[in-house]
Amino acid sequence: MATDRGHDAVEVIGAKRDGQELSDSQIDWVVDAYTHGVVADEQMAALAMAILLNGMSRREIGRWTAAMIASGERMDFSSLSRPTADKHSTGGVGDKITLPLAPVVAACGVAVPQLSGRGLGHTGGTLDKLESIPGWRAALSNDELVAQLESVGAVVCAAGDGLAPADKKLYALRDVTGTVPAIPLIASSIMSKKIAEGTGALVLDVKVGTGAFMRTVDEARELATTMVALGQDAGVHTVALLTDMSTPLGLTAGNALEVQESLDVLAGGGPADVVELTLALAREMLTGAGRDDVDPADKLADGSAMDVWRAMISAQGGDPSAALPTARESHVVTAPASGTLTRLDAMAVGLAAWRLGAGRARKEDAVQAGAGVVWHVRPGEAVTEGRPLFTLHTDDAERIPRAMEPLEGGYEIGDAAAYTAEPLVIERVS
Amino acid sequence: MATDRGHDAVEVIGAKRDGQELSDSQIDWVVDAYTHGVVADEQMAALAMAILLNGMSRREIGRWTAAMIASGERMDFSSLSRPTADKHSTGGVGDKITLPLAPVVAACGVAVPQLSGRGLGHTGGTLDKLESIPGWRAALSNDELVAQLESVGAVVCAAGDGLAPADKKLYALRDVTGTVPAIPLIASSIMSKKIAEGTGALVLDVKVGTGAFMRTVDEARELATTMVALGQDAGVHTVALLTDMSTPLGLTAGNALEVQESLDVLAGGGPADVVELTLALAREMLTGAGRDDVDPADKLADGSAMDVWRAMISAQGGDPSAALPTARESHVVTAPASGTLTRLDAMAVGLAAWRLGAGRARKEDAVQAGAGVVWHVRPGEAVTEGRPLFTLHTDDAERIPRAMEPLEGGYEIGDAAAYTAEPLVIERVS
Repeated sequence: MATDRGHDAVEVIGAKRDGQELSDSQIDWVVDAYTHGVVADEQMAALAMAILLNGMSRREIGRWTAAMIASGERMDFSSLSRPTADKHSTGGVGDKITLPLAPVVAACGVAVPQLSGRGLGHTGGTLDKLESIPGWRAALSNDELVAQLESVGAVVCAAGDGLAPADKKLYALRDVTGTVPAIPLIASSIMSKKIAEGTGALVLDVKVGTGAFMRTVDEARELATTMVALGQDAGVHTVALLTDMSTPLGLTAGNALEVQESLDVLAGGGPADVVELTLALAREMLTGAGRDDVDPADKLADGSAMDVWRAMISAQGGDPSAALPTARESHVVTAPASGTLTRLDAMAVGLAAWRLGAGRARKEDAVQAGAGVVWHVRPGEAVTEGRPLFTLHTDDAERIPRAMEPLEGGYEIGDAAAYTAEPLVIERVS
Repeated sequence: MATDRGHDAVEVIGAKRDGQELSDSQIDWVVDAYTHGVVADEQMAALAMAILLNGMSRREIGRWTAAMIASGERMDFSSLSRPTADKHSTGGVGDKITLPLAPVVAACGVAVPQLSGRGLGHTGGTLDKLESIPGWRAALSNDELVAQLESVGAVVCAAGDGLAPADKKLYALRDVTGTVPAIPLIASSIMSKKIAEGTGALVLDVKVGTGAFMRTVDEARELATTMVALGQDAGVHTVALLTDMSTPLGLTAGNALEVQESLDVLAGGGPADVVELTLALAREMLTGAGRDDVDPADKLADGSAMDVWRAMISAQGGDPSAALPTARESHVVTAPASGTLTRLDAMAVGLAAWRLGAGRARKEDAVQAGAGVVWHVRPGEAVTEGRPLFTLHTDDAERIPRAMEPLEGGYEIGDAAAYTAEPLVIERVS
């Protein structure tokens, strides 16, 4: 279909299919035409597969990202009295870090506009977790968002429909056409939303390992480097940490279960790895926002991060003092032997939590607030035969047998000598 | 979307995307599911691009072809009193060979069930050409087809909707998604229809050159080898000729113009290259059908091929004695210099004929019966400055300037020494 700007879909697809670089004008045209339905889903699917297999240059990815930003509105936080910083995680199991992170950074004087998503598949969604708090709502208008950033300093809410609508459409298409694992498309999807959101600084938590989208450090580094360059080119102070996701974070995977664990961290306790990653990401956000004079660990210790949490939950209709929901059924899995837990697989735990009802198979599914998995031991710790290893929570007892399947091969008990601790933060990309 | 047979579209797309061979069960499932709308257009488009870029093994292509055949009905000519042979051309400019070929082979005692298509883009369609004959109709029922094969010995008609419906749907999708030039998909598309049609012998005319889909002999040979193997595996006696399509065939490109040239050949005259290719293909068809004792040249010389032509046209409602339509406007292009015509580009002539109205840009467009290009000189022949080189025919004079554009760079006049005749039949693949 020819247009005034002289392009048509078959020409653009053919160029990428034949290994050519797309011109700025081809990229602008195809993203705009897809957003407006001139380029059909089947045409964009063929182009996405050609991009996945033939790649894109840095220039093409930058232009593609800019075109997706231009498809919608841009937010502007310049009226705020403090700098802004945001974090994005590529998704993992037990990854509740946003929950303690946003309040702790806000307590340090940097505003955190955290536009989040829901879970799909084995990784959880931040909004699903917060919705287990009675009364809390994810939807805010842009004006409410800005007002809360000024008054409370932290917001975790759903991204509005006006932000990068091209990305929204393309993301749904990629999900059903086997074109999700294309680094140019992953990078431009994440960065178009974060740049349009208008944050001043951005820290990317790029997960690596069995429970993550990127299975190898090389892939994760390529994605991180691509995204950091996109951010810098757009004037956003951007760094990335590659962090381990072969082992799930903390001791819980689920919705209310992870909120409770986050409250433990905000109260000055909680699992060591969750605290470590929260502080590592907080320090990067503070540095990016020009506030590296403040130590976020102090804000956990003195209760000021917890104060921000309570204000943030209240401002969005939630009751921070209400009891969190619990699942109707639970089932304990005991250790079959004594020794040291030498491996706990993130994907196995993520699948189990998903099957218990914590996650959804399709966008329109509901999640169970109380469902999920608690593991009582972390890799490197001792286990005793017959003592609890996992507790499974769900509202539907019939979900338990299928949830136990992945767990069976998902851990190993052995000699203490067989266990070597791996670093949680693998690499920094800036 | 999971099914009883345990596959879903994203899994099949992902396997091909990641360079794996698809299993028989994956191929059967995806072709059937696409035919029935369970696999969506955007999913098949992504799979087609992955096939184009990552290829398919001979086994995969064979299975894919079988699955497309299984999506519809198969015809059966076993009740006929004579053997059957068919020809398929991958498409070229001025390629009217089917018109004299079907009658001449039938005159030799072999039945020709030629299920043909319409033109799209710069290559003409056999049905479009025959429809320039007053009264002739392309649509026949299966019973009419078999009856005419018995009574007349030759049928050129439209393929019914029941034959390989999966291919029909996939062909239309490939056309708009930049996934036409995939040898596995081209080969399986052609061969699924020819095998389902039920011919006993098949000759493939694989065009090579500027006016063809395959630009190099290597590509054409790969396509030919693939198709010959598919045919042999299905029990069809199949051979292929690679033939030149850098120069257009004969002296005309258009609809009624090509019918007139075919009548010249059937009357024992006509351009030497059209006669040569007609006889080369006829001999292959006769050999494949076990009738290599008959010389098709005799059937042109003694008028019996023309008798079959007249019977074939009459049987489908046409008047073989009626005057052919002519275009309302014509324009003569004269030679700008004297010398030898050293090059005449098939693509240039094809584009010119298309723009004059002989072809269509979209499936739903109509074609002009009288439109097209006549070239008065063939490469190797002398030209004289100021004498006619081309005559352009169209019902709309305003089409002429755009039609002349490709012709301007589409030929060369030089020294006789600069011209070397290339063989019309380049290679035989069996």
